[in-house]
Amino acid sequence: MVQYTELDQKCVNAIRALAMDTVEKAKSGHPGMPMGSAAMAYVLWARLMRHSPQNPDWPDRDRFVLSAGHGSALLYSLLHLSGYELKLDDLKQFRQWGSKTPGHPEYGHTPGVETTTGPLGQGLANAVGMAMAERFLAAKFNKPEHELVNHYTYALVGDGCLMEGVTHEAASLAGTLKLGKLIRLYDDNHISIEGSTDLAFTEDRVKRFEAYGWQTIVVEDGNDLAAIDAAICAAQADQERPSFIAVRTEIGYGSPNKQGKASAHGEPLGADEIKLTKQFYAWPEEPFHIPEDVLTHFRQALAKGKECEKQWLEAFSGYEKAYPAETELWSRVIAGTLPVDWDQTLPEFPADPKGTATRSASGDILQAVAAAVPNLIGGSADLAPSTKTLIKGEGDFSAANYGARNLRFGVREHAMGSIINGMALHGGLIPYGATFLVFADYMRPAIRLAALMRQKVIYVFTHDSIGLGEDGPTHQPIEHLASLRIIPGLTVIRPADANETAAAWKAAMTVPGPVALILTRQNLPTIDHSRYHSAGDVSRGGYAIERGGDQPDLILIATGSEVSLALDAADQLLKQKITARVVSLPSWELFEQQSVEYKESILPAAVKPRITIEAGVTMGWSRYTGECGISLGINQFGASAPAEVLFEKFGFTAKAIVEAAVKLLGK
Amino acid sequence: MVQYTELDQKCVNAIRALAMDTVEKAKSGHPGMPMGSAAMAYVLWARLMRHSPQNPDWPDRDRFVLSAGHGSALLYSLLHLSGYELKLDDLKQFRQWGSKTPGHPEYGHTPGVETTTGPLGQGLANAVGMAMAERFLAAKFNKPEHELVNHYTYALVGDGCLMEGVTHEAASLAGTLKLGKLIRLYDDNHISIEGSTDLAFTEDRVKRFEAYGWQTIVVEDGNDLAAIDAAICAAQADQERPSFIAVRTEIGYGSPNKQGKASAHGEPLGADEIKLTKQFYAWPEEPFHIPEDVLTHFRQALAKGKECEKQWLEAFSGYEKAYPAETELWSRVIAGTLPVDWDQTLPEFPADPKGTATRSASGDILQAVAAAVPNLIGGSADLAPSTKTLIKGEGDFSAANYGARNLRFGVREHAMGSIINGMALHGGLIPYGATFLVFADYMRPAIRLAALMRQKVIYVFTHDSIGLGEDGPTHQPIEHLASLRIIPGLTVIRPADANETAAAWKAAMTVPGPVALILTRQNLPTIDHSRYHSAGDVSRGGYAIERGGDQPDLILIATGSEVSLALDAADQLLKQKITARVVSLPSWELFEQQSVEYKESILPAAVKPRITIEAGVTMGWSRYTGECGISLGINQFGASAPAEVLFEKFGFTAKAIVEAAVKLLGK
Repeated sequence: MVQYTELDQKCVNAIRALAMDTVEKAKSGHPGMPMGSAAMAYVLWARLMRHSPQNPDWPDRDRFVLSAGHGSALLYSLLHLSGYELKLDDLKQFRQWGSKTPGHPEYGHTPGVETTTGPLGQGLANAVGMAMAERFLAAKFNKPEHELVNHYTYALVGDGCLMEGVTHEAASLAGTLKLGKLIRLYDDNHISIEGSTDLAFTEDRVKRFEAYGWQTIVVEDGNDLAAIDAAICAAQADQERPSFIAVRTEIGYGSPNKQGKASAHGEPLGADEIKLTKQFYAWPEEPFHIPEDVLTHFRQALAKGKECEKQWLEAFSGYEKAYPAETELWSRVIAGTLPVDWDQTLPEFPADPKGTATRSASGDILQAVAAAVPNLIGGSADLAPSTKTLIKGEGDFSAANYGARNLRFGVREHAMGSIINGMALHGGLIPYGATFLVFADYMRPAIRLAALMRQKVIYVFTHDSIGLGEDGPTHQPIEHLASLRIIPGLTVIRPADANETAAAWKAAMTVPGPVALILTRQNLPTIDHSRYHSAGDVSRGGYAIERGGDQPDLILIATGSEVSLALDAADQLLKQKITARVVSLPSWELFEQQSVEYKESILPAAVKPRITIEAGVTMGWSRYTGECGISLGINQFGASAPAEVLFEKFGFTAKAIVEAAVKLLGK
Repeated sequence: MVQYTELDQKCVNAIRALAMDTVEKAKSGHPGMPMGSAAMAYVLWARLMRHSPQNPDWPDRDRFVLSAGHGSALLYSLLHLSGYELKLDDLKQFRQWGSKTPGHPEYGHTPGVETTTGPLGQGLANAVGMAMAERFLAAKFNKPEHELVNHYTYALVGDGCLMEGVTHEAASLAGTLKLGKLIRLYDDNHISIEGSTDLAFTEDRVKRFEAYGWQTIVVEDGNDLAAIDAAICAAQADQERPSFIAVRTEIGYGSPNKQGKASAHGEPLGADEIKLTKQFYAWPEEPFHIPEDVLTHFRQALAKGKECEKQWLEAFSGYEKAYPAETELWSRVIAGTLPVDWDQTLPEFPADPKGTATRSASGDILQAVAAAVPNLIGGSADLAPSTKTLIKGEGDFSAANYGARNLRFGVREHAMGSIINGMALHGGLIPYGATFLVFADYMRPAIRLAALMRQKVIYVFTHDSIGLGEDGPTHQPIEHLASLRIIPGLTVIRPADANETAAAWKAAMTVPGPVALILTRQNLPTIDHSRYHSAGDVSRGGYAIERGGDQPDLILIATGSEVSLALDAADQLLKQKITARVVSLPSWELFEQQSVEYKESILPAAVKPRITIEAGVTMGWSRYTGECGISLGINQFGASAPAEVLFEKFGFTAKAIVEAAVKLLGK
């Protein structure tokens, strides 16, 4: 067993004091968690974790996720002390405008922060995704004598994380997948915001994780460095099961009046209490004091990190010589770039009045993308046969086959969303997740974080309207297109036919940030693009699929399954000598990024009569109708009946559009 | 042990055959689950469940929730066979427009359906809410010699339900609360849509429920009626723990080619397979055949139900005599009506430039409402001190005190949403649930179902904008007001000050369906309503708080914390001889319900220059700005900094509004 010294103990107190002072200076934040869990964090960061503070992007670093993101002062203290690019002055700017130390850890904002956390449970599920990514890349790239990928993923979690459903989902899946290199440290402090966890959380956490197939270890004293060390080593040693280490801690450890109380959780301790607490630690009163010997000791992480990297680079160099093709692929996937000409094999679909469902077209397109892009990986929340998201010829990602690209998430949409975030954050993968559009609601917190972190993840949301039919209103998305469009940074694309679907996939792979593809259950005509404008303009978000001349009488604006209806309506209107332009507008976000001139060329301000047509809530469409136009939509829940009956009943027919147009034009 | 006969077995097969035929006729649906779980459903419905088919609203009936809602054909078969108001012709209209037998069970649509299910996991969490409601009402009303409330709540769940995080959350809480009268039957068929549950779901389910503090019982053979009977009786007998009965079944039982396979799950068996299956059951081929003896046997439920009701009415009559006041209260809460003058004690807040946070005002108002309305009950997802949602002088709802009204949900927003749905559905209670607005995302599937079922539940969503401050973008709602406004049937109210908050609570208690109150973290001035228009008009959704004459130069439209800014801006504009009307628009939904005349009186079409001001995404606001107006909003994520800094940086100051107004007017 490793011997820990007084200096080690001093280092632990340094973390506590720094976190405490950081929160106090900001007059805002969460001191109790860092104080309680400083010991386990120290053991991990200073001794057991392989990381390189000078190069936070070193691909084979161990990942550390602070799932209890409110304890950000802990993470910032560790980063500063270990020698990451985060200065003491940054800590003094905690929670201030423009600082590198926001209230919760934010990916891309602070070197060494692996994911954005705060919404509880997310980090833990991200960690499952990272551990899956590690296993996949290891299976894909490692060779018997040359290892490129072999790292642990650690997550520090609190009671709040363990209560959230998403962590149950993710933990159960991690057990099934036997993610032995995933290690979860549970800050078992018995306190949440409302008080004792006995109020609402009396389950046997250890037994629960056993039920999920995890190794479980209990550390009775959260300040016992040697015991924590032994527990983490035991966790590392079990390569068959993820490990759950329950560490009994005291929130606000060392604070004479707040230790073990909810009052230590979410507000500064106050000057008086800090004074008393520092007395308990035998610590100088001076704020932000870091003893020289403590800093020197912590900063050994720099040399250790360099040595780790050096060893890895040596291995890499050997790998490069032996496997040049694999090395090229490795470099590309780690850089996050796509192969040249990856999109040259995307299928083209001949015009066909009967057509196909865009989910089916998507399934065909996926095969081509997956063949060209070997790090595209994904799956569905138990709806693969319906969402058409299995990659053919690939096995299921499982303990027996970590190199396979079909992910089986089970009926766990939320975990799916958070896991693919973790995979994208890990690097090296382009993940997708699929379910029915209506169930996007279940994974909304994860979608929001993908957007906030600007991660390249792709959502395949099918069964996108009342066109779902008989399953009824619980399964029919009505407000969901709007609900996704309002998330800043998310690109939503609802293609009108098979060829627009191919163009949508192309956009999904190339535009920055997360993209949601919105696809039909039902067949749609494959539009004759020799008659109408090419589907290629999906990348511009919207285009005049049927121009109707330069001065049409009105503009019909539609998305997805409603575009064909609009084209039919335009044909019928022409018989009444009314010229209609039909604009296919698959993506508001992409369209809004176009130049004013382009937008004006598609939607000329002079043409006031406009009808938007989309089988969902109309909210938001008034930006395109202007004051004179109208929106055909559905502002109520759907119903259970065959799809064609529903479209008729809810007014989505070419005839209904024609009538609305004639009425709008006052003819 | 009860002896089951051949007739019982025939009854089980009758359920199977009926469900199979129902799906086949619709050419759509899920036959496998009803066929596999018919035996347990039979034992429960025909022998152990206390229900009255002629009076599905009998208050003390046992509740039955089909959490695996896709098995609706099972429920419809049971309802028809037991004598509920659901005819064979209704089953023949399964999944057709306007029928009483939609694809998934829909509350309020079909007699005997206790809740709308289909989105997996929801029903199970609803059942937890029902069981909590039962315990609360029992504690509140039962007297030693007179019991009004004493029933079980049963839920039939599948693998999908158990995978969803919301069921983990709800089950853990049910264990903590020792809900001994909650009984969960698990249809353990090892199959989900993608195939074997081994793909993604290998956890030890029984052990997991043990960890949650449940009694667990395993039935090895899902067709063994006596074993199922014994298991349910054992579950009933344990009043200290909820019970989890894992019943090993075969999906599509009896189908020679589909039993035990995913192909039995979600599509009709087909005529040939039905023929073979009926041979296996020794069943006539004729569709919808119900043998006379089977029907007679099932319909004993009518007499048994009448007898149950009779006994209960006798008890009620005794109760009525002994406890007239309690009886009056009982009748009122069961009818769902409010006490006369319940709103007379709502606080009024004097004008105050410093003011108070609307969450704090809400906390004060809640005390008055709770004092007047004894069946108002609720709590928070571990944020009660922040959301100000504890009822003072009330204890915590717990096994030791089921009569208390403060619910402690733990960090489980999703379960909270589903549980309060269950409480409302049970009847007798008006439940509320509270968390930060940003975490409404976690409970969105439950909010949608509340709206779909038109249940009276109240959401208290606080920390409603960047005004949340230092916690940063993960905690700052940006798109959330819009995300709630788009849910059909949900009323969203964002009051501007303490007095509008009182009016908002009043509306929340009285308008039909669910209501979301959107409240600030930060202090807002309490508006001087002797100078400005009365806050009472919140019930109309919007009103001119400052008229600015009949022909103002422009209209400023704001909600919540931005109303005071708009009033300040109007004052400043007046100094520049610009008259501005200020419209407080706390609720779009309520405003849109007003007459055309009223709306025109508030927002005269003639006044084109308009500015909407709301610290959230602008999508949707164009309906009020028209083509000439503009929207001040936030179409990006927030940041971590003190609130006042953020409002400044994001342009929410009176000065910024004045500048925008001057520019808009071209002055």
